[in-house]
Amino acid sequence: MMKVEHIGIAVKTFDTSIPLYEKLLNTTCYKTETVASERVNTAFFRQGDTKIELLESTDPDGVIAKFIEKKGEGIHHIAFEVADIHAEMERLRSEGFVLLNESPKKGADNKLICFVHPKNTNGVLVEICQEISG
Amino acid sequence: MMKVEHIGIAVKTFDTSIPLYEKLLNTTCYKTETVASERVNTAFFRQGDTKIELLESTDPDGVIAKFIEKKGEGIHHIAFEVADIHAEMERLRSEGFVLLNESPKKGADNKLICFVHPKNTNGVLVEICQEISG
Repeated sequence: MMKVEHIGIAVKTFDTSIPLYEKLLNTTCYKTETVASERVNTAFFRQGDTKIELLESTDPDGVIAKFIEKKGEGIHHIAFEVADIHAEMERLRSEGFVLLNESPKKGADNKLICFVHPKNTNGVLVEICQEISG
Repeated sequence: MMKVEHIGIAVKTFDTSIPLYEKLLNTTCYKTETVASERVNTAFFRQGDTKIELLESTDPDGVIAKFIEKKGEGIHHIAFEVADIHAEMERLRSEGFVLLNESPKKGADNKLICFVHPKNTNGVLVEICQEISG
């Protein structure tokens, strides 16, 4: 792994959460993006070398809506940037971690992503991500 | 705020969690430290410019033990580094955030720290921290 690329936070609605995080972090939300395949809207804030990503469900049955229903709003995942997502997926599998997708999928912010099952990581949902080049 | 200084993760026991995070992050735990006043042991891993801090309770009634009892193991807080913790506490108060301590207290890793009440931050426990100089 290389660095913490972003921290994903599940929120009910951007209407209140974007202004709130702008105040909290004392910075402006520089981008919002909808990821239709994941049924989420994302909103990004820079914080040094890392980003804070707010996640708002676009669907009452989406994963973020379900997460909030079960656990309430809060931190949803930590994403680590890797240089070669295929190699890192292979390394994690060989160490006994369970991956939530067989092959990398397209995420927000021009990334290939893969999630690690939180049952193997003390309840932490870990994402690994690689910038799509070109 | 300047950057994500660390992400704190509540775990039941270092015996299994330190080896697990060494495998997950593909790096060695470079420091452990007990913070008696907070009744926690801490274990640190570098990840780029940010650290992962595992938190293990030293007391069945400590905050980390209580957190795990209520929510299970998982991400406990995000800590943002600030240049002047007093000024940042003042700024946050003026924006309407509720701080969990009146004045900065001594945390792990040679830091002055202050927590922001999660009721104002979409359920996210936010720490601000400043390196103690000298």
